[in-house]
Amino acid sequence: MIDYGAIRLDTAGGTGFRFGARFASGHEATYDSGAGAAGPNPVEHLLGALAACEAMDVVGILRKKRLEVTAYEVLMSGERAPEAPRRFTAVELVHRVTGRDLPPAAVAEALRLSEEKYCSVRHSLDPALRVTSRFELVQG
Amino acid sequence: MIDYGAIRLDTAGGTGFRFGARFASGHEATYDSGAGAAGPNPVEHLLGALAACEAMDVVGILRKKRLEVTAYEVLMSGERAPEAPRRFTAVELVHRVTGRDLPPAAVAEALRLSEEKYCSVRHSLDPALRVTSRFELVQG
Repeated sequence: MIDYGAIRLDTAGGTGFRFGARFASGHEATYDSGAGAAGPNPVEHLLGALAACEAMDVVGILRKKRLEVTAYEVLMSGERAPEAPRRFTAVELVHRVTGRDLPPAAVAEALRLSEEKYCSVRHSLDPALRVTSRFELVQG
Repeated sequence: MIDYGAIRLDTAGGTGFRFGARFASGHEATYDSGAGAAGPNPVEHLLGALAACEAMDVVGILRKKRLEVTAYEVLMSGERAPEAPRRFTAVELVHRVTGRDLPPAAVAEALRLSEEKYCSVRHSLDPALRVTSRFELVQG
């Protein structure tokens, strides 16, 4: 087992649910929920981690091919079960990739490689969770 | 589908992989990887989200029972497959709960309820991923 660090409750005295993470890498993050939350809740972070994981794969693969990515965003949407544990039932990620003359086939192939082979987060999720990833190319 | 917001590549001009998330809730987060990363990587965030999700459930349940939690941390460790996609194969979470005269049975029951019924993140993960959660009680 690898040590990944710890999260600690910052709001032990009150009624809040704010946790500060201090990872073994030294990096920090905030997880919060409820009214007046100071950071994303765990479910938001799960989606963000999935989107970032895929996007990092795609950017890395395109750069290795010497293709120039000038901007990159991923729009995230999802559906959750209405009853507890309110698991995600579907996730849709739209990768909006901006670059100069990016070949659509290269972006499609990079996204396929992330989905099928590389993305650690995606492959840690329930296979029953339907994740749909697609891309849009923007010239610029 | 519910809109959860977007992540955007902050390092498009360089060689980095830093993404800034702006969630629909207005909350922000950073996902980064590689040398000199400015924030946790997606895999760290996945673990953090899982730990925070369970911990929020437990704290909420204990508070509803008027039990006083004075400090709470979760130690995170995990094992990943050596080959791509390097998915998590096992995760261990140790909930270290500090309080005044907290009944162990109440903490055990709260953790069981999170694991079996409430934790949205845990129930979005691959059932083949072995998650072991246990707790330690600290008097104080």
